[in-house]
Amino acid sequence: MSDAADIVEHRKLIIAGTGSAGLTAAIYAARANLDPLVLEGDEPGGQLTLTSEVENFPGFPEGINGAEFINRTKEQAQRFGAEVINGVVDTVDDSVRPFRVELTNGDVFTADTVIAASGASARTLGIPGQDELMGFGLSTCATCDGAFFSGEDMLVIGGGDAACEEAVFLTKFADTVYLVHRREEFRAEDYWVDRVMELVESGDIELVLNTEVTELHGSQEEGVESVTFVRNPEGYPTDRLDDPETEEWEFEVGAVFYAIGHTPNTAYLEDTGVDLDAEGYIKTLGGTGGGQTATDVEGIFGAGDVVDFHYQQAITAAGMGCKAAMDADDYLEEKARAETASGETATADD
Amino acid sequence: MSDAADIVEHRKLIIAGTGSAGLTAAIYAARANLDPLVLEGDEPGGQLTLTSEVENFPGFPEGINGAEFINRTKEQAQRFGAEVINGVVDTVDDSVRPFRVELTNGDVFTADTVIAASGASARTLGIPGQDELMGFGLSTCATCDGAFFSGEDMLVIGGGDAACEEAVFLTKFADTVYLVHRREEFRAEDYWVDRVMELVESGDIELVLNTEVTELHGSQEEGVESVTFVRNPEGYPTDRLDDPETEEWEFEVGAVFYAIGHTPNTAYLEDTGVDLDAEGYIKTLGGTGGGQTATDVEGIFGAGDVVDFHYQQAITAAGMGCKAAMDADDYLEEKARAETASGETATADD
Repeated sequence: MSDAADIVEHRKLIIAGTGSAGLTAAIYAARANLDPLVLEGDEPGGQLTLTSEVENFPGFPEGINGAEFINRTKEQAQRFGAEVINGVVDTVDDSVRPFRVELTNGDVFTADTVIAASGASARTLGIPGQDELMGFGLSTCATCDGAFFSGEDMLVIGGGDAACEEAVFLTKFADTVYLVHRREEFRAEDYWVDRVMELVESGDIELVLNTEVTELHGSQEEGVESVTFVRNPEGYPTDRLDDPETEEWEFEVGAVFYAIGHTPNTAYLEDTGVDLDAEGYIKTLGGTGGGQTATDVEGIFGAGDVVDFHYQQAITAAGMGCKAAMDADDYLEEKARAETASGETATADD
Repeated sequence: MSDAADIVEHRKLIIAGTGSAGLTAAIYAARANLDPLVLEGDEPGGQLTLTSEVENFPGFPEGINGAEFINRTKEQAQRFGAEVINGVVDTVDDSVRPFRVELTNGDVFTADTVIAASGASARTLGIPGQDELMGFGLSTCATCDGAFFSGEDMLVIGGGDAACEEAVFLTKFADTVYLVHRREEFRAEDYWVDRVMELVESGDIELVLNTEVTELHGSQEEGVESVTFVRNPEGYPTDRLDDPETEEWEFEVGAVFYAIGHTPNTAYLEDTGVDLDAEGYIKTLGGTGGGQTATDVEGIFGAGDVVDFHYQQAITAAGMGCKAAMDADDYLEEKARAETASGETATADD
């Protein structure tokens, strides 16, 4: 299958992703002498680099800047021998052993094991002001950042479960939470719609329906100060900007949360035997005892937000990264032993 | 059931344990406005305080002292409003709601939810030198501390799965690993005995059978320097010290690892409906999505080494602590909503 000529290098372990999960896996794998190659991916550092201050990662009583945390953890993994390089996995060929891992730049590695820690990317609107204000009043994670804006008016954009959940959560901190949805009806579960409607009745949440945000105003010094709204009674106002019924106005808020979903970064696994759920999240074995991060393909493990669609915290991802490295180490030891026992020539990789 | 007169206070959430799991749960619970009461337990800070330097917790490239990490994380939880007090849970009465939580000092609290993060205690030998040298060449965790003693002779004490696994793991770092067992036969799985015997053949492990360690020698400055061995051909030499066949000698080593088992601290849950396995570990729901840390008793959650008998790392425990706090918060919100919906008077605790 694979053409030996184009193989850059063989590794015991390739880790895809350098968020909290990937780098924790790298620390543990390096300390277990697996000499891991760690690929930074499209978004080096992952979701954590989108938040300004991380206050809920244990061990940092004063909080720590997300990017600084990632740099420290990367340095820690490198200190024990992990090699971290730029690179994005394009495909994994699991029809051969070792696996054939091709990067988007054309480089090809072979690997005895792969840890998929490629995360989930928050969807964004791509509107003016977004790039400048991300992490400065604009956030994709209410749990991470809600407490920073206590007493302010907050705006949540979205109409699904996550949007409703974040709006409900933020009522703990906000003066008023404005829940902005481009249609009249929410697509969230009844449970979440009911929760939202109770808080609408109590005055903690205000609904802003058939409305979209087209621009964010503010600065990195002052944070988010206002947004531009457009509304059309038929919904989807940005599709009807020329409609005379579409109105546009500016609205003051102290923080904006995108809650329009995440997409797990698993395109490179679609042609493998790794079982993905309907949304593309990796299914792992779970349960108690060892091997919790195993996928349906022996030797491929999953950790972090690419698996966990619920908790999605830096600390939970880190925990799973640790498990994946320990699982990969156990798997390689068991495999080496089985090969020795069956009389095959042991591979002498190092 | 409970006598209101002796109740000290009602809390939304009581967390038993201040190791990595309990304190991370405390951070998340405090930030979710659950106003948690955190009980330090018999071993404040848990297993981490038994290790000198923690090198594998992400975010600390230079490593961090175990006790310092715990202090920082405790300060972090307190900063967000967690109340941490001395206290050991004696019993939890789950026949009443709220739960009735009695401490060993006689104080009684009521609680809407309980997170059991009471850890597992490593068994120790209680021999001379142990208290002085714990964390200074004497360790209960090869994964944590093995790399500190690269190139030295290391001694692992025990005869079960954990002892064999740690001995195998330590061959990555040790000059020679001496596996010391008080009997002739190991009680470990065949798998682990086979792994050990392969490494005995290759000269990486030496077995020291029918032998026990009766004393540890060294200092906090120099670490462990030697141990006193006793051996009797019939095994269990410390039971046969007067037997003329029992020999005693001193033996030089650079590090000693106890691997004689852990005991989960769950005695206070034995009379509840919480399902424990044969060894006393808490069984949690697991799976994907929310509620992974739920036990068989609604409102009681489990996190850390009191649940996890396999990975038992600070970072995996912390991840589970986070999940338990988020699960408790979801549970309380759902309960409050159900009570409101069913027309009961909402309790006005705060």
